[in-house]
Amino acid sequence: MNSKERLGKMRHSASHVMAEAVQLLLPEVKFGIGPAIENGFYYDFELSRSLTPEDLPIIESKMRDIITQGSHFLKKEINKEEARQIFANQPYKLELIDEIAGDTVTLYTQGSFTDLCYGPHVYSTGEINAFKLTRIAGAYWRGDEKRPMLQRIYGVAFDNQAELENYLSRQVEAAKRDHRKLGKELDLFSIHEEIGPGLICWHPKGALIRQIIEDFWKAEHTRRDYSIVYTPHIAKTDLWKTSGHWDFYRDYLYPPMKVEGQQYILKPMNCLGHILIFKSRLRSYRDLPLRYAELGTVYRYERTGVLYGLARVRGFTQDDAHIFCRPDQIEEEIIGVIKLVQFLLSTFGFSDYEILLSTRPEKYTGTIQMWEQATESLKQVLEELNLPYRIDPGEGVFYGPKIDIKIKDALDHAWQGPTIQVDFNLPERFDVCYIGDDGMEHNVIMIHRTVLGSMERFFACLIEHYGGAFPVWLSPVQALIIPIADRHINYAHQVEDELRNEGIRSQIDGRTERMNLKIREAQLEKIPYMLVVGDSEMASSCVSLRLRSGENVGSQSLAQVKTAIKAAIEVKS
Amino acid sequence: MNSKERLGKMRHSASHVMAEAVQLLLPEVKFGIGPAIENGFYYDFELSRSLTPEDLPIIESKMRDIITQGSHFLKKEINKEEARQIFANQPYKLELIDEIAGDTVTLYTQGSFTDLCYGPHVYSTGEINAFKLTRIAGAYWRGDEKRPMLQRIYGVAFDNQAELENYLSRQVEAAKRDHRKLGKELDLFSIHEEIGPGLICWHPKGALIRQIIEDFWKAEHTRRDYSIVYTPHIAKTDLWKTSGHWDFYRDYLYPPMKVEGQQYILKPMNCLGHILIFKSRLRSYRDLPLRYAELGTVYRYERTGVLYGLARVRGFTQDDAHIFCRPDQIEEEIIGVIKLVQFLLSTFGFSDYEILLSTRPEKYTGTIQMWEQATESLKQVLEELNLPYRIDPGEGVFYGPKIDIKIKDALDHAWQGPTIQVDFNLPERFDVCYIGDDGMEHNVIMIHRTVLGSMERFFACLIEHYGGAFPVWLSPVQALIIPIADRHINYAHQVEDELRNEGIRSQIDGRTERMNLKIREAQLEKIPYMLVVGDSEMASSCVSLRLRSGENVGSQSLAQVKTAIKAAIEVKS
Repeated sequence: MNSKERLGKMRHSASHVMAEAVQLLLPEVKFGIGPAIENGFYYDFELSRSLTPEDLPIIESKMRDIITQGSHFLKKEINKEEARQIFANQPYKLELIDEIAGDTVTLYTQGSFTDLCYGPHVYSTGEINAFKLTRIAGAYWRGDEKRPMLQRIYGVAFDNQAELENYLSRQVEAAKRDHRKLGKELDLFSIHEEIGPGLICWHPKGALIRQIIEDFWKAEHTRRDYSIVYTPHIAKTDLWKTSGHWDFYRDYLYPPMKVEGQQYILKPMNCLGHILIFKSRLRSYRDLPLRYAELGTVYRYERTGVLYGLARVRGFTQDDAHIFCRPDQIEEEIIGVIKLVQFLLSTFGFSDYEILLSTRPEKYTGTIQMWEQATESLKQVLEELNLPYRIDPGEGVFYGPKIDIKIKDALDHAWQGPTIQVDFNLPERFDVCYIGDDGMEHNVIMIHRTVLGSMERFFACLIEHYGGAFPVWLSPVQALIIPIADRHINYAHQVEDELRNEGIRSQIDGRTERMNLKIREAQLEKIPYMLVVGDSEMASSCVSLRLRSGENVGSQSLAQVKTAIKAAIEVKS
Repeated sequence: MNSKERLGKMRHSASHVMAEAVQLLLPEVKFGIGPAIENGFYYDFELSRSLTPEDLPIIESKMRDIITQGSHFLKKEINKEEARQIFANQPYKLELIDEIAGDTVTLYTQGSFTDLCYGPHVYSTGEINAFKLTRIAGAYWRGDEKRPMLQRIYGVAFDNQAELENYLSRQVEAAKRDHRKLGKELDLFSIHEEIGPGLICWHPKGALIRQIIEDFWKAEHTRRDYSIVYTPHIAKTDLWKTSGHWDFYRDYLYPPMKVEGQQYILKPMNCLGHILIFKSRLRSYRDLPLRYAELGTVYRYERTGVLYGLARVRGFTQDDAHIFCRPDQIEEEIIGVIKLVQFLLSTFGFSDYEILLSTRPEKYTGTIQMWEQATESLKQVLEELNLPYRIDPGEGVFYGPKIDIKIKDALDHAWQGPTIQVDFNLPERFDVCYIGDDGMEHNVIMIHRTVLGSMERFFACLIEHYGGAFPVWLSPVQALIIPIADRHINYAHQVEDELRNEGIRSQIDGRTERMNLKIREAQLEKIPYMLVVGDSEMASSCVSLRLRSGENVGSQSLAQVKTAIKAAIEVKS
């Protein structure tokens, strides 16, 4: 048994222990279900009163008593009739018994608590080593909003106290880095009920970072012979019927708008515009590959419940591109994309990622042969580049297999990042052709790809990765000049001008506040360089340099500071 | 009588002469109406056969006979009964007679032709000096598509032959520069029936020019302390009800989309997102002015019939900004905007423009006092800057007066360009406030402004202004290297690398075609520099330089050419 299975069993047992504790404290409890989950467990309860965070230490304490007792988990198989009597007061359990196939069910008992459960469990409650109850949430019975709302208690459990504490402190750190929290504190973006959920307003500082990323992205794409294009955000619904998106993707499309008898929808992706640009001229085999790139904003309907800050939204800008190539160019093109991915991600400070190769889903278009051919191309490239990957069966898009790359941030959290998809389908549906050296028409191969994924999700990932302390090249304000008194303001302006002339984004904090307050606020704003100027700095054309880390570098000539900041901008990450 | 009135009278008389000529040639003709228009005239006819372009010289010739005869235009007032008898066979004229108020109507007769007409006319057909029939078009009687389709002949007429020829040759030049034609020839953009009318796909070369313009625009705005922001393309309809757009602008809005019981529409303008960003924090009088700029793509419904290339579209990207300021800052801010306008337009090569001050329209919001105050501010600024302007009565937007600037292109055609609008209304409706130095809340003043108008229309204007021969800094390909034979290809690549290292957009025409053909094609593509390389150039590290004007500069060192191109890029216009 591997460590993951063992941990899962222990966490499941912890959920039973929590249920026993709740039953001892609140005997009227009706039980829902209580599975193990990632890092821990939960149990759903129906109770006559609402639980509060104050209940959690009391339940924990009762759990510790049960664990100390070291009761054994005993398994018993009984017939359903007997089970119905045992759970006569437990309506949710009765519902589950009815749904179980066969005549018998399995029970697990430890101490005073018996549950309807397949197991497995640990031998004794004493094996539950390190746990903590973390939060209370509402959860509909069976996830169905028409059924009763139960109260769910979440807990985490680990092999030992050190691991538990490590996990909990990472959670604290993650909460500090939460992009929704930092987004507000650092004035980066907002979401407004008046506009609608999942729709992002980028504030000046967030937009500035986005613009720097976009400019860098465009320059690196241009350097690699991509052409930037722009296509409209709406198009006739018929276009999406031809493409197959209407059939395969309908649940995620915004409803159509009728104009002059024609239906239009918001584009859920950028490919069709690029296909029409490609088709606007006759293309020869010599013209290929053609690479069209677009920072294209798309709209997809997601239920309000699944929206999450910048990470899951309804309107987002993909850093999209479509490569139109000949079959003999596929692998070279995919290699080019992966190298671009590696370059861009490492520039943004990400070196750790996980590669998934997603294969044919249940709903798909095209022939099995096409799917196999495309999947094989992707595999070959990954193997040629010696990149470890795993297969994600059935997770391809309806029109082709794909490589998904998940970026790991500083807290080891995985973010969906780059995607590379091979597509034999749209070129057929739209008759996207080139004239071969045989003078005949051939279908092109299309490669759909994003490198950052979307500007929104990538920005969420960047915020959390850096905890808001962006590298200097991305920092909205790179240097804050802090005059100690009013008589230093002129010199502060002189310093600001010099920095601005070098392209360094600088500001002066000219408020009549104490210097220490200004420094503390600048640190909270994660401004990389604070340049304090007073009498002695003015006299010697110097500044007193402090860093956002808290380090006090001390007196530096203006030339030194400019050189240091410019060097930090230059190296990027 | 001024020259414009005199010309209008002569053109109106020319339409009568054309009608007489048509009647002489095709006696069964039924007449619609025949007014003077800008540069000329037209007349609508119902005929038993379709007119063809071959008919025009025949009609012209007959008109010349009539003009040579010098028949006088005779005016007569008669009662309606008499008129109905005269026009017994002219159903359209009978319809007009019924609609004229009073008992009498006016007739004009010259030669064999009598028309129902108020006049005035010239004294004699001999006064029609220089005219030409230009085209035939279909036109519904009274512009109503449920009424019969008549045949319309257009003509132009001027004081003398020189002016006529000048006009006609300018028309030929305008046709050559037509952005729809050049857009196709130079592969700049396309409009696809599959996507929908008025929705633009920017091809690589067009998109590159747009990107250069946008980058320049962003840099100049950042330099002037504007902050770039991004806001979503859709928002809840309620937001547009609060703003008043729903009431005042409904005909131009795309229909709502219903999502989870909420209605959303495509944004027709960017202001509301900027307001919500402003309102996301408390603002002090010290924070103002705040200037939010966005290259924001908006969607407005326009009837298919009025759409025109890039110049009138349904989806367009405004180079938008909103300035939030205190009342005491309005004039300084407007001066800043006008100076930015002057700088940007002159950089793009436009020095001639017309300024209109548009006042309160029929449908408006806010108080008369607000309107007067805002209008006064705009006037004062224009006068302070010594800018000539004229009043365009009733052409303001529903929420405030505006300054519209019309850009004149190389052919003296006027394009709608920058707009500056003062708005006291939205700050009230959305309660957009700052804390004054009195510690109280005050409404901000909003200034809506665009400099280029929209990327689409401005690009149309640029294409026509330069006839597709863009200044070097905007040219998609700045230098084309033309190797004479295959053995020069390596050297061509060396030249290309050197140019690219200097940031010069270069390409090689490596096809096995004749040099002259390559040069001719490069000239058609309006590539500014052609660098021909052969044996002697290779031997001496030179290139043979040709310009798109046709000028053959001759042998130049690579260093000379690089310096020349970089200088041309640097000066921009």
